[in-house]
Amino acid sequence: MKRWNGWGDDAIEFALNADALAFLGERLGPGTPGAETSHADACARIGGRRLPPHPLVDTSAAARLANALGQSLPDWLRLRYGKIDTAPDGVAWPESGEEVRELLDFAARSGAIVIPYGGGTSVAGHVGVEAGAAPVLTINLTRMRAMIDLDKEAQLATFGAGVLGPDLEAQLRAFGYTLGHFPQSFEYSTLGGWVVTRSSGQQSLRYGRIEQLFAGGRVETPAGTLDLPTFPASAAGTDLREIVLGSEGRLGILTEATVRVSRLPQYEAFHAVFFPDWESAAAATRELAQAKLPLSMLRLSNPLETLTMLTLAGHKRLIGALETWLRWRGCAVGKCMLMIGASGTAANAKHALRAALSVARGGGGVHVGRTMGDKWKQNRFRNVYLRNAAWEQGYAIDTVETAVDWPGVTPMMHALEDAATQAMASCGERVHAYTHLSHLYAQGASVYSTFVYRLSGNYEEDLQRWRRLKSTVSEAVVVNGGTISHQHGVGTDHAPYLASEKGLLGMGAMRTLFRHFDPDGRMNPGKLVSP
Amino acid sequence: MKRWNGWGDDAIEFALNADALAFLGERLGPGTPGAETSHADACARIGGRRLPPHPLVDTSAAARLANALGQSLPDWLRLRYGKIDTAPDGVAWPESGEEVRELLDFAARSGAIVIPYGGGTSVAGHVGVEAGAAPVLTINLTRMRAMIDLDKEAQLATFGAGVLGPDLEAQLRAFGYTLGHFPQSFEYSTLGGWVVTRSSGQQSLRYGRIEQLFAGGRVETPAGTLDLPTFPASAAGTDLREIVLGSEGRLGILTEATVRVSRLPQYEAFHAVFFPDWESAAAATRELAQAKLPLSMLRLSNPLETLTMLTLAGHKRLIGALETWLRWRGCAVGKCMLMIGASGTAANAKHALRAALSVARGGGGVHVGRTMGDKWKQNRFRNVYLRNAAWEQGYAIDTVETAVDWPGVTPMMHALEDAATQAMASCGERVHAYTHLSHLYAQGASVYSTFVYRLSGNYEEDLQRWRRLKSTVSEAVVVNGGTISHQHGVGTDHAPYLASEKGLLGMGAMRTLFRHFDPDGRMNPGKLVSP
Repeated sequence: MKRWNGWGDDAIEFALNADALAFLGERLGPGTPGAETSHADACARIGGRRLPPHPLVDTSAAARLANALGQSLPDWLRLRYGKIDTAPDGVAWPESGEEVRELLDFAARSGAIVIPYGGGTSVAGHVGVEAGAAPVLTINLTRMRAMIDLDKEAQLATFGAGVLGPDLEAQLRAFGYTLGHFPQSFEYSTLGGWVVTRSSGQQSLRYGRIEQLFAGGRVETPAGTLDLPTFPASAAGTDLREIVLGSEGRLGILTEATVRVSRLPQYEAFHAVFFPDWESAAAATRELAQAKLPLSMLRLSNPLETLTMLTLAGHKRLIGALETWLRWRGCAVGKCMLMIGASGTAANAKHALRAALSVARGGGGVHVGRTMGDKWKQNRFRNVYLRNAAWEQGYAIDTVETAVDWPGVTPMMHALEDAATQAMASCGERVHAYTHLSHLYAQGASVYSTFVYRLSGNYEEDLQRWRRLKSTVSEAVVVNGGTISHQHGVGTDHAPYLASEKGLLGMGAMRTLFRHFDPDGRMNPGKLVSP
Repeated sequence: MKRWNGWGDDAIEFALNADALAFLGERLGPGTPGAETSHADACARIGGRRLPPHPLVDTSAAARLANALGQSLPDWLRLRYGKIDTAPDGVAWPESGEEVRELLDFAARSGAIVIPYGGGTSVAGHVGVEAGAAPVLTINLTRMRAMIDLDKEAQLATFGAGVLGPDLEAQLRAFGYTLGHFPQSFEYSTLGGWVVTRSSGQQSLRYGRIEQLFAGGRVETPAGTLDLPTFPASAAGTDLREIVLGSEGRLGILTEATVRVSRLPQYEAFHAVFFPDWESAAAATRELAQAKLPLSMLRLSNPLETLTMLTLAGHKRLIGALETWLRWRGCAVGKCMLMIGASGTAANAKHALRAALSVARGGGGVHVGRTMGDKWKQNRFRNVYLRNAAWEQGYAIDTVETAVDWPGVTPMMHALEDAATQAMASCGERVHAYTHLSHLYAQGASVYSTFVYRLSGNYEEDLQRWRRLKSTVSEAVVVNGGTISHQHGVGTDHAPYLASEKGLLGMGAMRTLFRHFDPDGRMNPGKLVSP
């Protein structure tokens, strides 16, 4: 069963091995697991219902709790410590666009605010309920999950927008196709969520970001239905898909999405290459990203992330042997791991891999084969379970991500880690901060930092630690010329920093646009931009 | 010198050979060249100036005539027949963003309409002056043409948005880079024009459409300056670049654009492959487009375009020998030519070419080597001069283009050609109509039809012929599920058909957005969407 106050399926444990625990203990001190609220207690704290009855709306405490929050760290704090001070007044699971329209009309009649909810994997505060006078209706889209059409000739598939990643891929795989969109949240996030938050998958190098995959669809807005027909490309004025992408529920509810699919690759391989230091690794990775090779993934870990991954991997003897060999090849303390993926026909993928490995070796890289890469692929959606395991041991794990042009990449990496260190020092704590470049572009890279630090066991103190961390690191993003999000979206957590990249005129344009589709300001207010 | 009433440099003639003329004569009857207005007469017809004096504004008849129109067929008719009933009241050539702001302020003070003007290559009526009470100031951007910055590390170059294609490439080439954006209008179109009309170049398969190349920039709008910072990618809400792309002057003037550049390819080759018929050619081309090979171009001509190109090529003996050989290989009447381009390092481009030729051969294609391809590349910007040569002989050449998903591609091709045939038949004329797929996508293709028909020698009659052709063919685009433009934009000529793909809610969104940046409706009114 899906965990109500953590990540994923509660039958899946991804424990920290003893070495990993010792490693964290040494760097951060021993963790303090907090007392936890039970599900029954959390349900009991859900307040009164302010919505009139409607046959599609469930007002039970369990339903309201399950759709009250996402997966951000403050969301976890609220769930774990039982601070459920706000929740939707009702939840609906529509099964058709007509039911969505009916629910929007019901919300209008009831003066209710509407929050669209997909898989609830937001780590930026997209689905939370702000305190306020208006009742809140959360519309959970996950029952709209069928493949409605597969056009093999145009390689287009149309789905109900609430389809979860695995269900989407399973329906496509039955016919030999894939979307190829694999964010780390893949198992619990939805197609509609990917679109409205501009998500990016781990193999976007081959398949594209969701912006490139989203070909059209249907949006139910308070002002009416917006149909986006599919074209391979168009020069006809404003691309309305781009108004829906990144709209974070502010203009309506995406009910159907047509996506560009590909034939399942015949061949896929992920190879690991180690570099002696960050400078040579970053330079070679840039060279690869600018070589226009048809790869499916590039992912570069900095020295501390590389060390952390090797420590967490277990298999101490095997990893020890690898490290000895790497040391002999010049990759010792400070070594960085680059993962290179290629997918497609065997001939083309292997050609691309050969070309890429040649560039990497030219830049000082030591190729260690496929084992690490295959292991990475196997665990690609499991690493996120470490959040549960760390929490049980009294540690919080949070991440921040941005993207910046190449001259800013290394300075950004240092700035994010330094900002986190300062923020936690001001709380008298240490932080274990490491970084990888998760998505590589000719122009630059996403910079994705992970922060592990101790929980205090006290809600207010833990919220304060997170706030310091989040604001200090977000300010570093802005100061260093990054976007406030490369792949997680804005929500409430990043909203204060948005104006610095959009400008006042641009912020006004977004507000004006949303108001056109949602004249009463009913749709997910307070998220992305203030009303 | 640039022709004032035709295409390109007046020192360049690209004549129709005797065979080509006989070919057209047989299909359409003999042409009737019309009497032509002289430049002096055209200048004399320019009406009064309704703008107060301003040091940056030129109100001479010659300047106003030179910036009054684009390159659409009705624009040509007006120039050739001397029907210059409307023209801007003044023209300015600003050299900085500050001067653009000053001109926008001057326009506001004077109650003037503003039309931004780049290279004047629009074929959709983007830059024409509508009759009306308000004076019109045309702002010609072509003096803003310098490369302002080249960031080699991020492969980003910033230019004044008025830079012409050849000047842009020359400035980049000096440092070993290319933008790789080569629309047929390349020699006379500008970077800013490409961005605001969502242009696509012939090698977009490698370099991307202008949407993918445009990384950021600066727009001077009546409501203020909109700065678009560069990020490799972003999930931070609405992508404001997408609001500028395709805005066709309706929200302001793009003064600076930062574009994603690439290293000059070491190797580039264009190979020709013939197929026995359209069905096999289209199927193989779709297969190639969906194979995700790193090619730089695919371009498929239908049987009549193939025949026309071979006839116009001259070299009768050589072409005759080629056709005999092709006949022997099964490609006779009805054969179709596919051009395949690859660019990059020699190893990677050759691998992609080999893989592509293997797919093409598997689909029944006969590879004829590089000669035709090299010839095509050599003349890629010269074919458009045929419009001049045909006109001298009494023939009009017009084109219509759209894009549609694969199931619609062949029906669209037939529909466009049939619509043109019917439209001209209703004028008692024949049309020589042929088509190519100019840009190939996994999802579908652009469908680009050329129409050659006789001029009457009379302005009203010729305008009537064009109107019938344009409206009948545009309706066929809409009925067959295509976008009203894949690469030329909307302007005035396609505006009546836009609502059928955007919907009323979408049209309203565009209007609302433009009004946000241009509250007085001063910017290029009547283009793209009615006010």
